[in-house]
Amino acid sequence: MKKGNLYLIPTTLGDQSDLSRIIPEYNHQIVHTLKHFIVEKTRTARRFLKQTGHPVPIDDMSFLELNKHTQPNEVHKFLEAAEQGNSMGMISEAGTPAVADPGSVIVQLAHQKRIKVIPLVGPNSLILSLMASGMNGQQFTFHGYLPKDTNDLTRKIKTMEADVLRTGTTQIFIETPFRNNKLLDNLIQNCNPKTLLCVAVHVTLPDEQILTQTIAQWKKEKADLNKKPAVFLLGK
Amino acid sequence: MKKGNLYLIPTTLGDQSDLSRIIPEYNHQIVHTLKHFIVEKTRTARRFLKQTGHPVPIDDMSFLELNKHTQPNEVHKFLEAAEQGNSMGMISEAGTPAVADPGSVIVQLAHQKRIKVIPLVGPNSLILSLMASGMNGQQFTFHGYLPKDTNDLTRKIKTMEADVLRTGTTQIFIETPFRNNKLLDNLIQNCNPKTLLCVAVHVTLPDEQILTQTIAQWKKEKADLNKKPAVFLLGK
Repeated sequence: MKKGNLYLIPTTLGDQSDLSRIIPEYNHQIVHTLKHFIVEKTRTARRFLKQTGHPVPIDDMSFLELNKHTQPNEVHKFLEAAEQGNSMGMISEAGTPAVADPGSVIVQLAHQKRIKVIPLVGPNSLILSLMASGMNGQQFTFHGYLPKDTNDLTRKIKTMEADVLRTGTTQIFIETPFRNNKLLDNLIQNCNPKTLLCVAVHVTLPDEQILTQTIAQWKKEKADLNKKPAVFLLGK
Repeated sequence: MKKGNLYLIPTTLGDQSDLSRIIPEYNHQIVHTLKHFIVEKTRTARRFLKQTGHPVPIDDMSFLELNKHTQPNEVHKFLEAAEQGNSMGMISEAGTPAVADPGSVIVQLAHQKRIKVIPLVGPNSLILSLMASGMNGQQFTFHGYLPKDTNDLTRKIKTMEADVLRTGTTQIFIETPFRNNKLLDNLIQNCNPKTLLCVAVHVTLPDEQILTQTIAQWKKEKADLNKKPAVFLLGK
């Protein structure tokens, strides 16, 4: 029997009423053929599917949750529907599944089972921020979340800045939004005044703000980033 | 006078007749309001604008070319239209401008001139490949093109693989398509049989092929990647 595909389905980067701002029409065509989903949270995924105008009643769909509560020994069963010939969709809480979000363990399993993996186009805050930063897009590193401990954080920031100066590689990182201001303070205190810092806030949303300036400039006009989803980039 | 915006406009990743496969409808709405463009090649950009159904006659638009032939002393004038209040669009040859493509020098200039930079959503082969690879999407590095010299290439591959094993960071890189097979051979010869290699070919196009398997598996069923645009990923 022919196996189903695993479609990786991007969703919004926050409260986005107009999906045509960020999602190609084709994604909806694909999504509307699917009934089996692997999702980070069922409630959010249902809301998104409803927003796409999915024609199947939500109760006729199946949802498997993949998040920190998922038991490792459950995961091997997640692709059963695809093995039985049904295509499946994977949706995370924001943006593109499996990048700075759960999902890669399932995608790796799909490759092992020779289930075709098809990534759909959609908003990814890291790439959008990098495009808009004006920093080196030929070499870049994404570090994920930085250390919570202040000393470890300072050390990490200094290592990243040294890498910018030595190799020109753009350094991309994120922080839990309520710690953004602490991170910005730390960057201002520890980086060279001439180093460039880009902060990209609420990317693709109506109040998007993306600004690249030197550490010296950030010091002068300090921004309030508290609780705003943001991507940070260091570069030159 | 209020300055115009600089929109970063993604385009196709190759011969794509159906733009709704990869471009959100909103992008066309924005693009159709623009008459001033910074492009990698005028001919390709014009073809793309025509494909979007742009209502303005092509001859009434202005195009500035940003590529390896552009003189550095010309660049400071590229944003004049935006400074005079007209929004501008930037389009590269494939995918998203300023990531593995020219454009960042203009974006950096825009930030200096306090011209608002707005990145639009569209296909980026690096992120799509990473999503579909099943590899670590929490930490990753993009290296751009690898060295041409065989000894340098081998050294770079060994350094990248060591980084995978030491830190788990996914290593992403590209090659001029006519050298893809040489790169694949080199990876097979120099990497550990258990290391994972993903090759993503013709991403978003009808003949898209994305496969992650161990170096040992690649050795057994060697693929012909000659002249096919591909993204390579090493991970575990």
